[in-house]
Amino acid sequence: METKTPRAPAVYFTAKGQATRQRITEVAARLMFERGVAGTSLEDVFAEAGVSSSQIYHYFGDKHGLIRAVVQFQAKAALLCTDPLASTLDSFEALRAWARFHVEVQIERHCVGGCAFGSLVSQVTEIEPDTQADFSEGFQTWQGTIASGLAAMRDRGDLPATADPNDLAVSLFAALQGGLIMTQAQRNPRLLEIALDTALNHIESLAQRTPELA
Amino acid sequence: METKTPRAPAVYFTAKGQATRQRITEVAARLMFERGVAGTSLEDVFAEAGVSSSQIYHYFGDKHGLIRAVVQFQAKAALLCTDPLASTLDSFEALRAWARFHVEVQIERHCVGGCAFGSLVSQVTEIEPDTQADFSEGFQTWQGTIASGLAAMRDRGDLPATADPNDLAVSLFAALQGGLIMTQAQRNPRLLEIALDTALNHIESLAQRTPELA
Repeated sequence: METKTPRAPAVYFTAKGQATRQRITEVAARLMFERGVAGTSLEDVFAEAGVSSSQIYHYFGDKHGLIRAVVQFQAKAALLCTDPLASTLDSFEALRAWARFHVEVQIERHCVGGCAFGSLVSQVTEIEPDTQADFSEGFQTWQGTIASGLAAMRDRGDLPATADPNDLAVSLFAALQGGLIMTQAQRNPRLLEIALDTALNHIESLAQRTPELA
Repeated sequence: METKTPRAPAVYFTAKGQATRQRITEVAARLMFERGVAGTSLEDVFAEAGVSSSQIYHYFGDKHGLIRAVVQFQAKAALLCTDPLASTLDSFEALRAWARFHVEVQIERHCVGGCAFGSLVSQVTEIEPDTQADFSEGFQTWQGTIASGLAAMRDRGDLPATADPNDLAVSLFAALQGGLIMTQAQRNPRLLEIALDTALNHIESLAQRTPELA
């Protein structure tokens, strides 16, 4: 448990070393998504990445370091891969398209795996305290990106001035994460769809009530 | 991986044996909640329960059998311990009290552990396929209990006839599960509070819009 903090690649590794470290991290992230963190051994990562055990220890210290690298990878991947539409949510149409995207991803995946980043929370938080800051930062960035679109809608007058974009973003994000848990547990994409649609119905209803408030 | 299905205690064990099996399951459930499934070894369970390794193998077959017993235990404990107010949700006051209860539990626990049952989904689903039915049944019972209260509110006229109690229960339950994930990841009970309050604001707003629909 001594070497939980992974070495900083920018300081210790050459460009080639960083690329190798990144490749191993991506392989580990994929395996941990497919099989769970507990279901992924270092041996699995060696075999899939085609590297030696000494390389894993060189780049990550130990399994703790590799897990932390995967959490940091998925935190960054959240807005690039997991939720690529998060930065577009500045209209009701965009919000509905975003919901459809997430439901379709679950249908394609047969509801396996849940959220690539969110599913790490239960698996990692309590046994790897060093990941706390990575989770907080990753989630805050993600929620903040959703909130930006909602703030633009409020500023434009699509949402009433009394609407709180941050609170609405938290509730939308909870619907996404909770819906994904339910969909994974019950292998039913309809649960995510209901959760997201209801959260969006609420946001649309705020707009419909604007005249009464004005 | 051969002995994943735990033996049925009613068939194979005496009353004393069943009590011992139950006690070991409860200890394992507590450890897995505090340390995660991966962070709980069979040795930890032997030590905490004060039983021998041969008893674990006798009662559960192997770690797969013990994990499945814990999932079944938490599915039952959901309505008894984790969410004891779920069967009372037939008024707006009861719904707000329910939300406060869950937020207060998180404050007391310093946001550690998440949902005792929901946190097992990411940890267990993909590596223990035999638990699929246990998760589905447990979640459906829980959601159905929440839906019953909302159905009573609709039948009484507190919610409009157009409100779907099952869909609203799914969205409330997603707010709970998603809010718990966010609260665990960011160690901030306010996130759960916002998620639940927003979901309840939506349900209350349906009632406020009744006259327009009538």
